[in-house]
Amino acid sequence: MKTDSILLDHGSGGRLSHNLISDIMLPIFDNPILSQLHDGAIIDIEGMRLAFSTDTFTVDPIFFPGGHIGDLAINGTVNDIAMCGAMPIYISIGLIIEEGFSILDLEKILKGMHVAAEKARVTVVTGDTKVVPRGTADKIFINTSGIGLISGNVDISSHKALPGDKIILSGTVADHGISVLLQREGINFDSSVMSDTAPLNHMVEAMLATTKKDIHVLRDPTRGGVGTSLNEIAEKSNVGMIISEEKIPIKDEVASVCELLGFDPLYVANEGKLLAFVGSDPADEILATLKENEYGKDAVIIGEVIADNPGKVIMKTRIGGTRIIDMLSGEQLPRIC
Amino acid sequence: MKTDSILLDHGSGGRLSHNLISDIMLPIFDNPILSQLHDGAIIDIEGMRLAFSTDTFTVDPIFFPGGHIGDLAINGTVNDIAMCGAMPIYISIGLIIEEGFSILDLEKILKGMHVAAEKARVTVVTGDTKVVPRGTADKIFINTSGIGLISGNVDISSHKALPGDKIILSGTVADHGISVLLQREGINFDSSVMSDTAPLNHMVEAMLATTKKDIHVLRDPTRGGVGTSLNEIAEKSNVGMIISEEKIPIKDEVASVCELLGFDPLYVANEGKLLAFVGSDPADEILATLKENEYGKDAVIIGEVIADNPGKVIMKTRIGGTRIIDMLSGEQLPRIC
Repeated sequence: MKTDSILLDHGSGGRLSHNLISDIMLPIFDNPILSQLHDGAIIDIEGMRLAFSTDTFTVDPIFFPGGHIGDLAINGTVNDIAMCGAMPIYISIGLIIEEGFSILDLEKILKGMHVAAEKARVTVVTGDTKVVPRGTADKIFINTSGIGLISGNVDISSHKALPGDKIILSGTVADHGISVLLQREGINFDSSVMSDTAPLNHMVEAMLATTKKDIHVLRDPTRGGVGTSLNEIAEKSNVGMIISEEKIPIKDEVASVCELLGFDPLYVANEGKLLAFVGSDPADEILATLKENEYGKDAVIIGEVIADNPGKVIMKTRIGGTRIIDMLSGEQLPRIC
Repeated sequence: MKTDSILLDHGSGGRLSHNLISDIMLPIFDNPILSQLHDGAIIDIEGMRLAFSTDTFTVDPIFFPGGHIGDLAINGTVNDIAMCGAMPIYISIGLIIEEGFSILDLEKILKGMHVAAEKARVTVVTGDTKVVPRGTADKIFINTSGIGLISGNVDISSHKALPGDKIILSGTVADHGISVLLQREGINFDSSVMSDTAPLNHMVEAMLATTKKDIHVLRDPTRGGVGTSLNEIAEKSNVGMIISEEKIPIKDEVASVCELLGFDPLYVANEGKLLAFVGSDPADEILATLKENEYGKDAVIIGEVIADNPGKVIMKTRIGGTRIIDMLSGEQLPRIC
């Protein structure tokens, strides 16, 4: 689709976002680090390898079951850095606040950010606050950027998935997106669906302590969900993938809401889950490590990487068929993070 | 003034911003790096000293004489890092775009960012794009964060001004703020007032090549202008200052607009100027270095640091009197950067 103005879909994390980045941004800033399009950039300063990442949060509503825009913003950047195989250390906060926003709510958000930072063991070292007139922003938007350290022999990138790799998913899908959606629409189910927002860096550290060389790709499937993340990795690594629908963990209440409202949970955002592409031999050991972590107890191997059908993700359905899992082309849920 | 909601003044860079940071943010995130409240954080990773800074740009209008929100965003973070005495290297970009924004304008802004990055010799290595529904943001907001390297014996901080230090200002004041104001209000003077947006890192490098130990404080007087920056430094270094009104360079057309509209140019934002507090002996040599640079040719010593009246900035006026230059308490010009 050609358009001369920005659509919501350009921010969906799906096909149009992908095109905006590939067709407009990459040619302008043309450089090998940016072109990696990892969750964070892997940079070199005087021979030291660092991960550097930025993420902006515009979630609506700003408070939702299981979290709020503040802890989401800390965890989001912590996780982007962790997905580079790095240990996040320092975080910056950039606030855009609408005139008239409640100072009590601001304090609540900032306190939540502090608690999240403590939990992830990162330090907020610098910040910036802009206030814009009423009606020119919606309540509060938060950018976080962060820096982490990559240890010597870690080599993780979306380009490194290899045929034979096992694909691990660390837990249930779609919790975050559905939690925000229900809160936004004021839909009150008896069940309480909660966002899964969480820092994944300690779990990644434990995985790297098990094996460094056999962890090829890490990715937290946020905007666009598991479906879009798998497609991006299939494309960048030029491999195929087969996953099994029945292996994908989903909470009953989340599955029900998805069915009722017509959302495919494979494309709904997660904020405390990761995908890991790991060598076949140590896969069970890595899985066991994940399961010991509070955020990985439902971890499961959902499929594997194949040499056939490069760029394609194929799912064996519950009823025994197969279907292609494509990249999300439209926006299912705007302002989910 | 006590209030339970955020006012435009909380983002002015003046007294209320200062209070918001001191009374709410610092106690929450309580840590020694953040408490420095420098333009950027000076951080340590495995013994390497880095500067890390973040800044969000919400300027209205997004295009103005002399620049646009994009080059402003690159130069702003480049300068914050340079003010730590660091050499900026890597930059991130976080975009919040309003649905319906022109893709041509987006390309123009991104191309301008690339040109600005090339000029400053920094690399844009990572980014993030969020699109929000029409009416929930005003066109485009840009966050940039950046990382720079601090060489061994540089020790620059707002706490280091010493009695006897000379205060250098690198050029004319109020160009940026007045340029944005005139564009926003559609006021058409015959004169063309231009924003001074520029990268100052090469000039800082030249200064540091002259002397490292005698450069005590660097600061780019953006929001809040020269008046607010001097006050912050006086407070943090616990020193007094005497500056001379007649020494402060200002373009005739900028002075006329300020007079006509009732703005004090000492509080109007600059985006390509720096204040340097330097030892008395090498002051003339440092001034000569500044004057050789394209962005420092109008540099001048505007005053000096004194031990008396700690925390106060005193100005000798043109007519021979003195007045206290206080921190700006209200917002002169919202959305100026």
